[in-house]
Amino acid sequence: MRITVNSGGPQALEEWRGHFRACDPAIEVVGWDEARSDPAGIAYALVWAPEAGRLAALPDLRLVISAGAGVDNILADPLLPPGLPIARMITDSTAGVMSEYVLTATLMLIRQARRMALNQADRRWQTLDAPPRIEQVRVGVMGLGQLGAPTVQRLAGIGFQVAGWSRGRASLPGVQAYAGPDELAAFLARTDVLVCLLPSTDATRGILNAATFAGLPRGACVINAGRGDHLLVPDLLAALDSGQLSGAVLDVFDVEPLPAESPLWQHPGVTVTPHYGSTPDRRERARKAADMMQRWERGLPLPQLYDRQRGY
Amino acid sequence: MRITVNSGGPQALEEWRGHFRACDPAIEVVGWDEARSDPAGIAYALVWAPEAGRLAALPDLRLVISAGAGVDNILADPLLPPGLPIARMITDSTAGVMSEYVLTATLMLIRQARRMALNQADRRWQTLDAPPRIEQVRVGVMGLGQLGAPTVQRLAGIGFQVAGWSRGRASLPGVQAYAGPDELAAFLARTDVLVCLLPSTDATRGILNAATFAGLPRGACVINAGRGDHLLVPDLLAALDSGQLSGAVLDVFDVEPLPAESPLWQHPGVTVTPHYGSTPDRRERARKAADMMQRWERGLPLPQLYDRQRGY
Repeated sequence: MRITVNSGGPQALEEWRGHFRACDPAIEVVGWDEARSDPAGIAYALVWAPEAGRLAALPDLRLVISAGAGVDNILADPLLPPGLPIARMITDSTAGVMSEYVLTATLMLIRQARRMALNQADRRWQTLDAPPRIEQVRVGVMGLGQLGAPTVQRLAGIGFQVAGWSRGRASLPGVQAYAGPDELAAFLARTDVLVCLLPSTDATRGILNAATFAGLPRGACVINAGRGDHLLVPDLLAALDSGQLSGAVLDVFDVEPLPAESPLWQHPGVTVTPHYGSTPDRRERARKAADMMQRWERGLPLPQLYDRQRGY
Repeated sequence: MRITVNSGGPQALEEWRGHFRACDPAIEVVGWDEARSDPAGIAYALVWAPEAGRLAALPDLRLVISAGAGVDNILADPLLPPGLPIARMITDSTAGVMSEYVLTATLMLIRQARRMALNQADRRWQTLDAPPRIEQVRVGVMGLGQLGAPTVQRLAGIGFQVAGWSRGRASLPGVQAYAGPDELAAFLARTDVLVCLLPSTDATRGILNAATFAGLPRGACVINAGRGDHLLVPDLLAALDSGQLSGAVLDVFDVEPLPAESPLWQHPGVTVTPHYGSTPDRRERARKAADMMQRWERGLPLPQLYDRQRGY
């Protein structure tokens, strides 16, 4: 079994080789550059953001495995062969890593970590009001799938007041569940910290917009760990500047790396993190990819296959 | 009952008055400045860092109540009447607020929040390695008293591997307990994130020093939310610069506000927070102070009285 890997750059290739070898010695890892001149028999590709046309140039390719939970950067390739199966990378730890990211971001927002970092840069000692206690903070998670459901339950276990919002009604112990467009307003009205973990679909694109922000209590916060295209950046900046929102933590962006000219970098209400929300380590991703390859070889179903119809 | 308040400045006086009135209409709150010209009958003082000699100038003063958990700034007054009783402010929520501070600081350290804040200031997108998971992180809390014990148990409940170190052996469910100087080395050797919540005594002053840092695993982190004099700043900076420590979050300092010329402000491994670890809100502190006054009037014992012998 030959797989080519485009994740972490050439310097990560030897690490990937070691991890795949440990899983299955029959797996041969071909570097992304080598694959150009030696494409024969490469049936698998583990990629995050492949250059346009590179996947189409692999004649024996049968399965694309995303290096992360999202597949947008793969679908963005205009030369992507239309019927090629794509699998999402969701390991056992993906949801756990994400829930710890959201926990950290929530605590940093309610405890004004961005304000303190700016003060520190200015050597300014500013006494701050006592932060709200965890049990006083109402967190609302949009998206209750493989990432959202474990995240909202983790936050509930730590003592936050949690609710979730999703397309169809979810049933999660200890979580107040809202469903569909009709219940969005009620969900927003009770939410101090809004967390977006939605997939990117026609129905969710741009959902973090002025109307959504206006539906939150004044001074609420937003965390976007879904996709960059969920957020309308001008709407966010306006809501922060008016005081409707008091802060935002953003991990995903329309263009990554976030360009230096983006106004998000310097805004005092925005914390930028480098798409860091749910990166499982390479060992675990190699293990998961090897498992998918073995299942594919045996004709077993892959539950993490991307569904073009559904949009995730 | 007359009490003078020196906490939050003149702009906080009306708020204090409202909170005390709600607790007990018989309590008259005298402003810290007014108390100079009208000291008669002021039996109580709620203070954080009174100017030298001001307490001695109150002829009817019977009880000093600290506005926070520590009393160092009160003891620092060379004119403090030697026998004057001093009570520490530990409200029902003090330990809860502290445990949430330590939780936030721990997550910010293991997820490199300081590095990300510096990158954001430079508009730099830097891919970071996946952070360790909560259950992989060994937190060690020094001091298992009214703040330390609830904090270490809170962290255990969230899934960290926790241990505690104290003078006498503590017995806390789920917490590995180390005691005394003989067991310090073993405690340090198993600690990735060292949290100081000790009181400041002759035995603990300067305990965060080069030898302590050298006893931690390479790349460990330190949180000081005890007292400023626990930490030897030059030793901390040397341990950060050598890579022995990978980060520190400091909430308390020898001199507060931290002077602008302190090297701590700009060090890339140090996060400075403005003595923010356990500030209960004013309503709660007023309630606690009123309760102490009522107990004092009735001759009931005050469990939070500072013990000059013991040092806390």
